[in-house]
Amino acid sequence: MAIKLYSYWRSTAAYRVRLALNLKGLEFETISVSLAPGKSEHRQDDYRSRNPQMLVPFLEDGEFGVGQSQAILEYLEETYPEPALLPSSAEQRAAVRSFSSSICCDIHPLNNLRVLLYLQGELDVTDEQRDTWYAHWIYEGFRAAEITATACDGPFVFGESASFADACLIPQMYNARRFKVPLDDFPRLVAIEKHCNARPEFQDALPENQPDCV
Amino acid sequence: MAIKLYSYWRSTAAYRVRLALNLKGLEFETISVSLAPGKSEHRQDDYRSRNPQMLVPFLEDGEFGVGQSQAILEYLEETYPEPALLPSSAEQRAAVRSFSSSICCDIHPLNNLRVLLYLQGELDVTDEQRDTWYAHWIYEGFRAAEITATACDGPFVFGESASFADACLIPQMYNARRFKVPLDDFPRLVAIEKHCNARPEFQDALPENQPDCV
Repeated sequence: MAIKLYSYWRSTAAYRVRLALNLKGLEFETISVSLAPGKSEHRQDDYRSRNPQMLVPFLEDGEFGVGQSQAILEYLEETYPEPALLPSSAEQRAAVRSFSSSICCDIHPLNNLRVLLYLQGELDVTDEQRDTWYAHWIYEGFRAAEITATACDGPFVFGESASFADACLIPQMYNARRFKVPLDDFPRLVAIEKHCNARPEFQDALPENQPDCV
Repeated sequence: MAIKLYSYWRSTAAYRVRLALNLKGLEFETISVSLAPGKSEHRQDDYRSRNPQMLVPFLEDGEFGVGQSQAILEYLEETYPEPALLPSSAEQRAAVRSFSSSICCDIHPLNNLRVLLYLQGELDVTDEQRDTWYAHWIYEGFRAAEITATACDGPFVFGESASFADACLIPQMYNARRFKVPLDDFPRLVAIEKHCNARPEFQDALPENQPDCV
């Protein structure tokens, strides 16, 4: 198969790419790279030689490979433009990218596995402190996301069709639920999540539906 | 002036946008939003109503406004395409964006002011633990960045002309030096920094050359 996604079922960033691939109707092969402590396949030599960033996701499309979920989404949009996951005007595109970046830059990097392991392993924070940290950054980011999404009508974040924004939001919602972060303050985000998760492109991308889910 | 940049002199993310604006030869007005503890102008109502994310930078171009540095860079590239800060092929564009995202998503969000304040204020980490945290995420990210940049020739990260990658790297190098992170392991990054910082577009964007530098 031409497109290969190096992925871990629980990776929030890989989940974004699965959604973009599914929304574009692109077939792909999932290659599992376990981030589980004790396995850490992303830090082993063969993966490292492929992706020196030693993170998932990493996409291969034929001979070409690229890491970083936002870069992958942009690559897919340029290479497989239909259906579009960005609007047509520069202003609307910027709004979608800003929403997406607020999740990819200002929520998720603070809460991903390597950071939680550092907090507990190096800084000896308690489970409660870790969970408070986690919820804090979700709240900070979702508060703004709720305002932005509420200013738009339609079943998706930015209206009638799915965009990068939904591909970034839905994995972060999943992640928030996994850590039992209350979502009562974000009714618009919850409604978008419900709408999205009823669709097969989103169902197929769920972590528990991945081949390497344990 | 048509373009306004809401900015804080020490913000690494605002610095990226100043570089992109300068590299494109766009004039802009800087509007200071102090992130300094005690001032926190980014959390005050008038800024919040402009940018619910309550972060800098925020760019206004006439009536249109957008936050998040990567979204702003993409907006500038689409709206003011010359000189280009992205290459022409989808593959090369993806490589530049991946490099940029590795800094914007996997280094800087862990080390910005709000996170350092949380570590000290909420988790009672010592100055030494904070600095170790800081250096750790720089090292993790720069190690991969050095490999990627070394695989390319030319004075800039990706060859003969400046790109998003340089606009993201140079502020992060500045930031690393500010926190006295040793850079001996990253000779290619240091050489790129030296080349860039000899140029007026980069000089003008330096934090100490901003009107709100105190």
